[in-house]
Amino acid sequence: MGSRFRGNDEILEDDDMHAYRTHTCGQLRADSAGETVRVSGWVHRKRDHGDLVFIDLRDHYGMAQIVTEVDGPVFEVIEGLRAESVVTITGKVEPRAKDAINPNLPTGEIEIRAVEASVLSAAAELPLPVAGEQEYPEDVRLRYRFLDLRRETLHANIVKRTRIISDMRRRMEAAGFTEYSTPILTASSPEGARDFLVPSRIHAGKFYALPQAPQQYKQLLMVAGFDRYFQIAPCFRDEDPRADRLPGEFYQLDLEMSFVTQEDVWNTMEPVIAGVFEAFAEGRHVTPAGSFPRIPYSEAMLKYGSDKPDLRNPVLIADVTDHFVDSGFGIFAGIVAGGGVIRAIPAPGAGAGSRKFFDDMNNWARSEGFSGLGYINIKDGEPGGPIAKNHGSEATAKLIAALGLGPNDGVFFAAGKEAQATRLAGLARVRVGEQLDLIDKDRFELCWIVDFPFYEYDEDEKKVDFAHNPFSMPQGGLDALNDQDPLTINAYQYDMVCNGFEIASGSIRNQSPETMVKAFELVGLSKADVEERFGGLYRAFQYGAPPHGGMAAGVDRVVMLLCGAQNLREITLFPMNQRAEDLLMSAPSPASMKQLRELSIRVVEQPAAPAKKDVEEIVSPKAG
Amino acid sequence: MGSRFRGNDEILEDDDMHAYRTHTCGQLRADSAGETVRVSGWVHRKRDHGDLVFIDLRDHYGMAQIVTEVDGPVFEVIEGLRAESVVTITGKVEPRAKDAINPNLPTGEIEIRAVEASVLSAAAELPLPVAGEQEYPEDVRLRYRFLDLRRETLHANIVKRTRIISDMRRRMEAAGFTEYSTPILTASSPEGARDFLVPSRIHAGKFYALPQAPQQYKQLLMVAGFDRYFQIAPCFRDEDPRADRLPGEFYQLDLEMSFVTQEDVWNTMEPVIAGVFEAFAEGRHVTPAGSFPRIPYSEAMLKYGSDKPDLRNPVLIADVTDHFVDSGFGIFAGIVAGGGVIRAIPAPGAGAGSRKFFDDMNNWARSEGFSGLGYINIKDGEPGGPIAKNHGSEATAKLIAALGLGPNDGVFFAAGKEAQATRLAGLARVRVGEQLDLIDKDRFELCWIVDFPFYEYDEDEKKVDFAHNPFSMPQGGLDALNDQDPLTINAYQYDMVCNGFEIASGSIRNQSPETMVKAFELVGLSKADVEERFGGLYRAFQYGAPPHGGMAAGVDRVVMLLCGAQNLREITLFPMNQRAEDLLMSAPSPASMKQLRELSIRVVEQPAAPAKKDVEEIVSPKAG
Repeated sequence: MGSRFRGNDEILEDDDMHAYRTHTCGQLRADSAGETVRVSGWVHRKRDHGDLVFIDLRDHYGMAQIVTEVDGPVFEVIEGLRAESVVTITGKVEPRAKDAINPNLPTGEIEIRAVEASVLSAAAELPLPVAGEQEYPEDVRLRYRFLDLRRETLHANIVKRTRIISDMRRRMEAAGFTEYSTPILTASSPEGARDFLVPSRIHAGKFYALPQAPQQYKQLLMVAGFDRYFQIAPCFRDEDPRADRLPGEFYQLDLEMSFVTQEDVWNTMEPVIAGVFEAFAEGRHVTPAGSFPRIPYSEAMLKYGSDKPDLRNPVLIADVTDHFVDSGFGIFAGIVAGGGVIRAIPAPGAGAGSRKFFDDMNNWARSEGFSGLGYINIKDGEPGGPIAKNHGSEATAKLIAALGLGPNDGVFFAAGKEAQATRLAGLARVRVGEQLDLIDKDRFELCWIVDFPFYEYDEDEKKVDFAHNPFSMPQGGLDALNDQDPLTINAYQYDMVCNGFEIASGSIRNQSPETMVKAFELVGLSKADVEERFGGLYRAFQYGAPPHGGMAAGVDRVVMLLCGAQNLREITLFPMNQRAEDLLMSAPSPASMKQLRELSIRVVEQPAAPAKKDVEEIVSPKAG
Repeated sequence: MGSRFRGNDEILEDDDMHAYRTHTCGQLRADSAGETVRVSGWVHRKRDHGDLVFIDLRDHYGMAQIVTEVDGPVFEVIEGLRAESVVTITGKVEPRAKDAINPNLPTGEIEIRAVEASVLSAAAELPLPVAGEQEYPEDVRLRYRFLDLRRETLHANIVKRTRIISDMRRRMEAAGFTEYSTPILTASSPEGARDFLVPSRIHAGKFYALPQAPQQYKQLLMVAGFDRYFQIAPCFRDEDPRADRLPGEFYQLDLEMSFVTQEDVWNTMEPVIAGVFEAFAEGRHVTPAGSFPRIPYSEAMLKYGSDKPDLRNPVLIADVTDHFVDSGFGIFAGIVAGGGVIRAIPAPGAGAGSRKFFDDMNNWARSEGFSGLGYINIKDGEPGGPIAKNHGSEATAKLIAALGLGPNDGVFFAAGKEAQATRLAGLARVRVGEQLDLIDKDRFELCWIVDFPFYEYDEDEKKVDFAHNPFSMPQGGLDALNDQDPLTINAYQYDMVCNGFEIASGSIRNQSPETMVKAFELVGLSKADVEERFGGLYRAFQYGAPPHGGMAAGVDRVVMLLCGAQNLREITLFPMNQRAEDLLMSAPSPASMKQLRELSIRVVEQPAAPAKKDVEEIVSPKAG
């Protein structure tokens, strides 16, 4: 290389300057003109302008322009160096000529005229360009993640991610929470998703599990008397990879509080979450703390057809079942007579447009597996389409008035059994919002969905089962469990939703052993089952357990929303690929015989056919 | 229970007060006298004083005294309740009578006269008392950790631990570092300790490993251009349990910096670590930042007989080999003639005492496996003992003068091959300091040990091997590797030591692929070996790697020092026992056949005998 860099000591002897830098690449301004400085960084770009060569030198903090003569000694050192080589430049800060000032660059008013250069690390030919950020195949990006991470957008996303997490921590501490780390090598969870297992060397045939969430530990912390817990908690689920879930690990802002009602949790967390969003929304609107709508689950399912409503979408679904009792439109009348429901999804202003929009919506609904999406399109006050015609003009006018539709609006109808009509209405609402461009992208609309049902009827198993979290406190407590139809009992359970995504979920926990046993009894589990499966927690509740509750927020989802990223890999430092492989570090990899012997396990050959099928399923992700 | 607590809603309807508390148990002061308040917590103690009953009610924040009449309605509710039951008390704050004021309790000037009580959770008979903190068997403490954690000292230690970690984070961020989380499911490390393995479900026969440390990832972060990384990093090593190491996981304050020399790392980290110590030392002396002694490894081994010197101990070892060339004390003369060394360990003031101290030290050295510890005891200026006698009075006087010994001092001699004499001298220095009570316990003496040798001679393998971290930069770089005797090369490698404990270790890394290959070549590994074993890192260094270095500090050790705890379990929330079991959550535990099938593994029966031996080794820990 002809580099003057050999080891630290030699460089230090050269002069009084720091061996590598007096300033970072993003630091110099016009008022440093005349100073002799030293900067180090990566050669982002070289530009040859006749007898002068310009180098954009990049480090974590920014970019500086270096200038040197083509026939000078500095050029000799860096000549032939590839982009992304690491160099140290010593030189004089000079103001740029007026017409050369770059107002988009913080250091754009100056350049550094190089007097000395040394190569710290010469780059080989790059498998992936850093400057410019062209699209590149994912396997190359992951294999050379250390290059990919130098690219502007990904670098910025990762820095933003770390700042968001740091800001969460700061706000949680300011709200009186303390961060406790819970064990990562722990017990297999009998509930929920699939565990990652870790064979025990000392206890042959036994396994630890990585925590799917610190749920039991955080509840134990409350029983142990620690009042306000939080943790940026690593969680592990061995699920098949999906577009919206990376294989392996993810992070939750996990928290728990003692001696609280659910209102306390909401009132405590609204300022934290709204605060984080405001800090990183770059001026976009955020629902202010203290004004998050609290929407009962049943209302959300009716008005938005979803428990994850995007409140930026102004379209509201209405139940119009009553309008179709004995309607002239026989299909709907029949559905209503059969116990079904009709839901109306307004399409503001769509009536003025072409019929194609309505037909396309109908076709889309069919392609999604529904029987179709009826509609009325109003043009200059005149309702059109087969439903309007058959329903009769007086009844149609009444329906339109009830829905408050204008002279050029449209309305779709989702009809069928309640669950299915609800789902179709919800999907249609989203699609209408997108197609008619009704959604203001520059907003973060936050809300709570509350009063989730505690139980649901499992059609497959033909029995009552927990709808969500079996550890939640049923509203009405033991009395409700004893006296009420289980399917009418709500839980003290809630989600926080932003722009159509669930970003947090939580509940007030059932800390009464008696109520816990009864709650499980109603889904067919005995007291012995509870003791066996949830022994740690059940035992703890016998010795003085405070009322407690909390929630867990998805860090990755919050970061994605704030970065505007569509893919988890765009906000994750070292993600695995969709096949759950770390291409950079070559994981997973075979173990040695010694390792397996120490762990008292043996690898079992799989039958070929099922293994192949597994692979096919995994390499065909549903979406980007 | 007769409790008025059933569910959240019912309590809320009762009155305008919060369902559980208007104040915490540690919050009330004399200026709240006359207010009606509500507090919730655990019944710490009940005291019956004739017609009045006093309850110490405890929560996370403190203790409040509740008072009620024995024949009143409140007493009825709490009568018969066991300690550690959780109750809500509503009552009036009253100033205590002058003679009842407790100056040791922040709430000691008031008490709460109860007007209403409700039981939130009645405690069963306790397997472990909370009040009083009697010694209790460890298995009970771990099985009922949620009770153990309510005890005063452990609760305080855990809170202190969390504050220390939070303070570390704050100081690291203030020093310009950013916290990045590195993957937990990663690749097996070919170096170092034993990995925990995680079978891959998707890739039959392959395994992830939990990281022993994020070493490779943090270096990759530097190569990726992130300038100052830190992480409170969970680390995992499947080692046999020891007193000073919990099975499973531990935490490091891990950090790395780009474009730095080792002096930069030291100058950056001294304020952070000294700052953390000062913040939690409760007035004890801490070596100020900027003045940590930087002691070369060779000097430390000579003066302290250890690379982890306790600088609170004023005793300094001296090499006195030259004094014993041709000495009349034949044993030492023989050792010197055979290439051995003699090290002197002064024992200030010990000469005035009894000979027993000297003989006990000699016996102790023998019990540790050394051949013995010679000594001279000076009494009123008169040297005594066989060494003085045989060495000759003139030579002895010269030796005493050279060591600067006073008229009533003693001195021990460790003789033998250098490594062994060094070790004995170091152990004797510690013991002399303890026995003579020379150590000021109220100090935290911090220093750096620097210039560690890069290589060492492996007597078993009869070859040169890395002394510590193979990824460190050798001083002198490639030239030194080419030209110097490997055993004379030092590394840019350093430890931070406090009071005799290594609390951090770090180095400037070798980021040059050429130097890396040469460094490994000298221990007999080829370029292909380097590529195969450290592919991720080696590959990364080809594409522009900045000079970088850092360190990792043991969070647990720092917390132990600051809490004055002797055992890791006293500063750990949910530790495993010495058999690597989580008694609370019952981990590890058998996996189901379905789980094993999914993971393509099978448990192999162990031969009975070795398994038993393993167990014996593990259940006999070396120390507390």
